[in-house]
Amino acid sequence: MSILATITSPADLRQHSIAELTTLAAEIRTALLTKLSATGGHVGPNLGDVELTIAWHYVFDSPHDKIVWDVSHQSYTHKILTGRKQAFLDPAHYHDVTGFTEPRESPHDWFTIGHTSTAVGLAAGLALARDAAKTTDHITAVVGDGALSGGLAFEALNNAAVLNRQLLIVVNDNQWSIAENHGGLYQNLKLLRDTNGQAERNGFKALGLDYTYVAAGNDIATLIQAFQAAKDCDHPLVLHVNTQKGRGFAPALADEEAFHWHAPFRLSDGQPLHPASGENYPDIILAALERQLQAGTPIYTINAAIPGGFHLKDWQAKHPDRYLDVGIAEQMSITLAAGMAKGGLRPVVFESATFLQRAYDQLSHDLGINALPVVILVRGGQITGGDPTHQADLDAGMLSNIPNLTYLTPTSKEELVAMLDWALGQPQGPIAIRIPSNAVQSAPLAADWHPLRQHVIHHGEQVALLAIGSLLPLAEAVAAQLYQHGINATLIDPRNMNALDTTGLDQLRGFHQLVVTFEENSLDGGFGQKVAAYFGTSDVAVLPLGAKREFTHDQTRQELLDAYQLTPERATAAILAALSHR
Amino acid sequence: MSILATITSPADLRQHSIAELTTLAAEIRTALLTKLSATGGHVGPNLGDVELTIAWHYVFDSPHDKIVWDVSHQSYTHKILTGRKQAFLDPAHYHDVTGFTEPRESPHDWFTIGHTSTAVGLAAGLALARDAAKTTDHITAVVGDGALSGGLAFEALNNAAVLNRQLLIVVNDNQWSIAENHGGLYQNLKLLRDTNGQAERNGFKALGLDYTYVAAGNDIATLIQAFQAAKDCDHPLVLHVNTQKGRGFAPALADEEAFHWHAPFRLSDGQPLHPASGENYPDIILAALERQLQAGTPIYTINAAIPGGFHLKDWQAKHPDRYLDVGIAEQMSITLAAGMAKGGLRPVVFESATFLQRAYDQLSHDLGINALPVVILVRGGQITGGDPTHQADLDAGMLSNIPNLTYLTPTSKEELVAMLDWALGQPQGPIAIRIPSNAVQSAPLAADWHPLRQHVIHHGEQVALLAIGSLLPLAEAVAAQLYQHGINATLIDPRNMNALDTTGLDQLRGFHQLVVTFEENSLDGGFGQKVAAYFGTSDVAVLPLGAKREFTHDQTRQELLDAYQLTPERATAAILAALSHR
Repeated sequence: MSILATITSPADLRQHSIAELTTLAAEIRTALLTKLSATGGHVGPNLGDVELTIAWHYVFDSPHDKIVWDVSHQSYTHKILTGRKQAFLDPAHYHDVTGFTEPRESPHDWFTIGHTSTAVGLAAGLALARDAAKTTDHITAVVGDGALSGGLAFEALNNAAVLNRQLLIVVNDNQWSIAENHGGLYQNLKLLRDTNGQAERNGFKALGLDYTYVAAGNDIATLIQAFQAAKDCDHPLVLHVNTQKGRGFAPALADEEAFHWHAPFRLSDGQPLHPASGENYPDIILAALERQLQAGTPIYTINAAIPGGFHLKDWQAKHPDRYLDVGIAEQMSITLAAGMAKGGLRPVVFESATFLQRAYDQLSHDLGINALPVVILVRGGQITGGDPTHQADLDAGMLSNIPNLTYLTPTSKEELVAMLDWALGQPQGPIAIRIPSNAVQSAPLAADWHPLRQHVIHHGEQVALLAIGSLLPLAEAVAAQLYQHGINATLIDPRNMNALDTTGLDQLRGFHQLVVTFEENSLDGGFGQKVAAYFGTSDVAVLPLGAKREFTHDQTRQELLDAYQLTPERATAAILAALSHR
Repeated sequence: MSILATITSPADLRQHSIAELTTLAAEIRTALLTKLSATGGHVGPNLGDVELTIAWHYVFDSPHDKIVWDVSHQSYTHKILTGRKQAFLDPAHYHDVTGFTEPRESPHDWFTIGHTSTAVGLAAGLALARDAAKTTDHITAVVGDGALSGGLAFEALNNAAVLNRQLLIVVNDNQWSIAENHGGLYQNLKLLRDTNGQAERNGFKALGLDYTYVAAGNDIATLIQAFQAAKDCDHPLVLHVNTQKGRGFAPALADEEAFHWHAPFRLSDGQPLHPASGENYPDIILAALERQLQAGTPIYTINAAIPGGFHLKDWQAKHPDRYLDVGIAEQMSITLAAGMAKGGLRPVVFESATFLQRAYDQLSHDLGINALPVVILVRGGQITGGDPTHQADLDAGMLSNIPNLTYLTPTSKEELVAMLDWALGQPQGPIAIRIPSNAVQSAPLAADWHPLRQHVIHHGEQVALLAIGSLLPLAEAVAAQLYQHGINATLIDPRNMNALDTTGLDQLRGFHQLVVTFEENSLDGGFGQKVAAYFGTSDVAVLPLGAKREFTHDQTRQELLDAYQLTPERATAAILAALSHR
């Protein structure tokens, strides 16, 4: 019988010897690799902290003692040890758990967390609450894996330094970010590793934090001793633990970045099971930037620790002097771009909307007020059905209502490239471009193409369908269904989702009694509500179709599209119902 | 003739001896105090950096060399030296300049900046742009006065550490934040001051930054030497300059916090010219919290470096164990509150909306997804006509579209207190309450009061006026004017501005042909657009009145209210026009 078979709760760990726990670590690695090779997921981070997690649960008494995992994508071993191992052992249950800590799953999880740099602040709050309630639980935050470069982590460490009560801060230093050279902090971590924690230059001590270094961060006996020694410290203590990202899987060690998160792969050699192929928007974008750069446009590309999704590694190799990855530091990515634009460069920033919201103030205050011509390429505008922490349908409500910022929504590769070219040539302010979330579409540009004017794809009457970006194919399908009902609908690509082409909208009056908007994002703060307000006192009715403002958990994309009336059948029915009420 | 009379541009400084420049510093202090005592403004910060600014402009060649002032409320001497002294010497021109750097005013100003922690990132962008353009200008960032506690400053320093090119980072350490103990960083600055910069525990060096300490930060000769030595450094250098906040004005030295920003005051003793008096919302809020605390509610109050506007100093003195000022670290203020709420406390966070936008991700990801019962008291929802950096009418677009977050908008003190009590008792999620921006109003609560249901103040017909918070008096005035036109309008307090009381709205159907919404914020993403979308396919017309989505610069509040149709006459005219079109 395996050791893992004997573990149903953390307390079971304490029935085993160190040798058995070491065997357990190997068993957990096998389980992780077997599952992750089939489902995809965060590979490297979870292979790195198996021993750390076992040791923590051996020494501390969860859930009385509380552990807060930063980003929480490295909490798989924690899930295995806290009653959820079936989700890692039985393919039929692989999807019973999310990829992040989730209080809905277990009393051992405290927060639903998927963005970085939150753990120390959350744990500090738990520590203050504990002392106000005069209870005796120990609080631990685990940070690392790039999360220290986010400003929130610094704000929290700075405040933790004067908290003067028990708070254990485990820095899970898996060495990874150093290769990417995301700032001086990672050089300091390397210096501390190289000096066995003895270097005088110590960013944690400089803040006034107590500090202990653990070199053998994948050795269970060492970790248990370290946690036992740290457990009852009466003030905040940084335990800097040196771990190995991707430990136990050669392909993950050979390419730590690729295996930070990986799609399903072959266990034998780590090769992807379903290699991407064919035309894609990231490559189309980079080709357009290459052309612009060759033509003399002073392009400078910036990204915040997510180069993979934008295929930026090749670009970086070709143009190292035109590329900067600022690390997990979205605020800096935008403020830096503001400075560059003022200095005459044409910065292009690559962002996921869910992370870009960390730079809201910089978008408004630094870019918006100063009206600086920065181009931001945004992944978002998609109903995913995944974890709420990475929900991709909140981009419009976040970006659309910032003054001076324009949010363009191309529907095809031709439009995307034309918008990019236009944005790189205009002087008036920041332009965000939403990368379409659907498969690459192609359509010739109209002769009178302009990104700020809506495009009438088909002139009809009675009903006008205004479809944002990726929902143009849906609107086309709806138009086809309406035609079966005797309605020759007008079809429009609005192009700009956060400012109305009022000239174009006014042309709809008289010939249309209903305007329908389609957007793959929360309706609140989005396009349809702006259109509805514009026609508010006219006799043109407006039906905005889009997502509800909500965090979603267990639904699939298809379930959500159905609930939001974003299928041809449901949308058509909603339109016919609206017409019947007029 | 004064020395100041001879200075029309920075180059004129180099015509003077050190003794004359020291005299100039005294003349500038007199000018600053004379103006600021009359107009109000940032007193302490500007009194502290007079010599630093003179010395920088003596050594560097602005605007070829570029200086970026963090927060930029300490740039008054810079303005005086760069052609704008009339605005500090002639009362008729006092309002010719803003309180912040402003490229519209001068080629010596690079950014319109009023939020903290931006300078290093912006300067890093300028430095990268300079090197891409192969020009020879020197770039300087001036940070300090609390700005280092913001996470963006850390993100920028962390990245600057590996930039490997000229970038001078002046840390203007005016010692102020140490009294407030806003974190370990300020203890480190004190240690460095106490050791003449020699301490081994050095947060800047830990990041890998070069570092020089200047003890005599108000001595021009010393500063000139320091800048000359630093000028051609070929890598980022931190020049840690020890200055004295409020220097030259005894009341500002005696109460540094009060004189950080001060309303008009008597020069003789610093006493306010127009002391506040009478009932005010901050005191009403604190009295309600006191009552809740005495009744056993585990209140914990948090604020991010702006206690004054909320009268929190008295609260802090009475309840030091129920109060934390995290410094300029809005992200931390929200994440900490999330942790506290999970631990069972009832955190109450005091924020200005313009700064709260720095915590957008934390509001959505930490609080929203986790549905934690944190109460946020928001100053905002006001058309101010001041600087765009502190514009207070962008709160709705920022806060209203975050899932799980409720934004309540009381219209009276009774409603404010009832909402606060309700928010502190409910379990379901974060509640933001917008503190009314008008004078304290009083009205008895309805018997069936509920914060999530709109309140019909007057039952009429034909037109329904829905007025958010501070605009209820305007709607009352409009109702009176409409009555003169034979219209008995319904008057409604919506109470909740980001979720519709659809039951209440449905009751308007049939008896009303027009719904008018009033909100003192940018319409985009706000209440009126949601109402317009709700009635989009019905025969109820909707006229949303509110601010345009724009950054405003020179207009007064009254001009803006007029432009936005938020006066009784303009609103009434708009309503009559809408009715005539139906």
